[in-house]
Amino acid sequence: MEQTKKRTEIAELGQFGLIDHLTKGFEPKDKTTRLGVGDDAAVIATPENEETVISTDTFFEGVDFDLTYFPLKHLGYKVVTAAISDILAMNATPSQITVSLGVSAKLPVEALDDLYEGIRFACKEQEVDLVGGDTRASLTGLVISLTAVGHAPKEKIVRRSGAQLNDLICITGNLGAAYMGLQLLEREKRVLRQVDNPEPQFKGYEYLLEKYLKPRSRTDIISALAEEKIVPTSMIDLSDGLGSDLLQICKSSKCGARIYLDRIPIAQQTSRLAEEMHNDPVVAALNGGEDYELLFTVPLSMQEQIMRLGLVDVIGHITKESTGCFLVTPDGNDITIQAQGFVQQKPEEVAESK
Amino acid sequence: MEQTKKRTEIAELGQFGLIDHLTKGFEPKDKTTRLGVGDDAAVIATPENEETVISTDTFFEGVDFDLTYFPLKHLGYKVVTAAISDILAMNATPSQITVSLGVSAKLPVEALDDLYEGIRFACKEQEVDLVGGDTRASLTGLVISLTAVGHAPKEKIVRRSGAQLNDLICITGNLGAAYMGLQLLEREKRVLRQVDNPEPQFKGYEYLLEKYLKPRSRTDIISALAEEKIVPTSMIDLSDGLGSDLLQICKSSKCGARIYLDRIPIAQQTSRLAEEMHNDPVVAALNGGEDYELLFTVPLSMQEQIMRLGLVDVIGHITKESTGCFLVTPDGNDITIQAQGFVQQKPEEVAESK
Repeated sequence: MEQTKKRTEIAELGQFGLIDHLTKGFEPKDKTTRLGVGDDAAVIATPENEETVISTDTFFEGVDFDLTYFPLKHLGYKVVTAAISDILAMNATPSQITVSLGVSAKLPVEALDDLYEGIRFACKEQEVDLVGGDTRASLTGLVISLTAVGHAPKEKIVRRSGAQLNDLICITGNLGAAYMGLQLLEREKRVLRQVDNPEPQFKGYEYLLEKYLKPRSRTDIISALAEEKIVPTSMIDLSDGLGSDLLQICKSSKCGARIYLDRIPIAQQTSRLAEEMHNDPVVAALNGGEDYELLFTVPLSMQEQIMRLGLVDVIGHITKESTGCFLVTPDGNDITIQAQGFVQQKPEEVAESK
Repeated sequence: MEQTKKRTEIAELGQFGLIDHLTKGFEPKDKTTRLGVGDDAAVIATPENEETVISTDTFFEGVDFDLTYFPLKHLGYKVVTAAISDILAMNATPSQITVSLGVSAKLPVEALDDLYEGIRFACKEQEVDLVGGDTRASLTGLVISLTAVGHAPKEKIVRRSGAQLNDLICITGNLGAAYMGLQLLEREKRVLRQVDNPEPQFKGYEYLLEKYLKPRSRTDIISALAEEKIVPTSMIDLSDGLGSDLLQICKSSKCGARIYLDRIPIAQQTSRLAEEMHNDPVVAALNGGEDYELLFTVPLSMQEQIMRLGLVDVIGHITKESTGCFLVTPDGNDITIQAQGFVQQKPEEVAESK
């Protein structure tokens, strides 16, 4: 089927033609966007009494994504989620993104159209404007670099450094699903290499695939916190895994933490696939990254308010720095939490490091 | 000599350790920086009555730079110049950058230290803060993605789209030097492949090397324009070559242009090397990119003011859209100006397309 698709070489459009082609139809809608794509720089007006937050992420083919099973449309959606997630983690409202591509000649224009369709869809859904970016040749794989911009009143911006003794540690959603989705895709890729006319086995694990291939931004959490007038004392987005990200909060806030294993929310499909693959679902939840959920702390006095949101689990509390960071098992054992970057690991290595 | 240098593998520091190591000592200084490196996002306060301008650029090893002759310290400096150049082209003052790296394991930590030394030096010289960025594994070459942020009063921001009939076309500095610097480096690389104990021949062309390897930002122009109370009608930075960049102004402003060959400023070293290499210096000036000079238009009535700056050459004027874009030769011939992206061309191809 793939062969019947039209294939337009990037060279046919040229560098400038390609940029024009890809960014066509991205009309700025946010009230803070003064000038979008097509000049040396975008122009953004910061709302009165607000500050600008800005963050950059880069995604590399073969390291951060594998095009053999990652549909480009989903990839476009996912990189926007990842970029926006950093803005949400500051308790700010995302408003603009720029997208900078490195493209190898092996990809036709139609592939980039798919990628941009995903970007366009995510921008529309999240109400952010695409305001800039360039497209360059890459000698090797696809490289996608995004910068996200957002705004928030100064007093509502939340850093990693504000967690206080006895604060509650809260997380949204459930953990490890994206990681198990990746494991599943990698497994099927290995299987398919050995079989003729293969049919990948994803049945029953659709949720895991969606969490890995098309994760949603938790903009709803930022809105819900604002409605309840809750300003977290510290916050981070879960992109590197609960373990690493909690350690970042503790390092910045100069504190320790105790989280309880039986309170970590893990989806049924995550547990089921982990068992099937002889993995520990808790390892997936702790070390698996790219969940793009939010990890934050609030004062103990806000326990009721937080529970009322119905969107958040309290998984532990902040302790003194000198006591360290621990995962407490149901039988009362303390396990030291260690940093574990997600992006530079292949699933095999994670499995080995268990 | 290279062998006696200490070599620390990136893996020894780990992903988070490396980011900490590289960004150590980047203390925010700009009055608009509220929060720098080390959180999910940087926080920037826009000065009252000003707007934020933002631009992203990505540089790929093997496409945008060749590490066999590009010292990493210079590369760090140059990418900051390139990023800032887009902010200057909006007539704005640069204030922050973020730097996102894709790093292959072949580079030791010491190489990245050199890169960051150049970045640090450029930031200090240009008075911009490094406020964020990440470092990821790249399976192939070095990839550097920068986002630059700046500020300007709304009424002083200059777009590409404001050029008017009869406006003067002005450029700063001289053109083609960076391109000839690249040609020289490529020539010596070819020669060195064939010779034992080689000594590259750069004597007499030091200026060209500096323009290519360590170009300066034209912040002085933005200050001089402000002092003389000149707000250009349109502006762009010369990164893709005079031809392409002038066409961008004409496209955005819906106008034509006539520029005069004998008014295009070309440095002596540029002409001399072009002759030596049997190249046309005008082709280098028109199609060679990465000069990071500024191209802008001002009303005819400002001719005296502009000349008084002593920093600018008037090379032509804006015409009606229907008349097209031409380079006028001394003997009165009109040559149609054509777009010619710089980054995707190897020097050989430019020579062939003459």
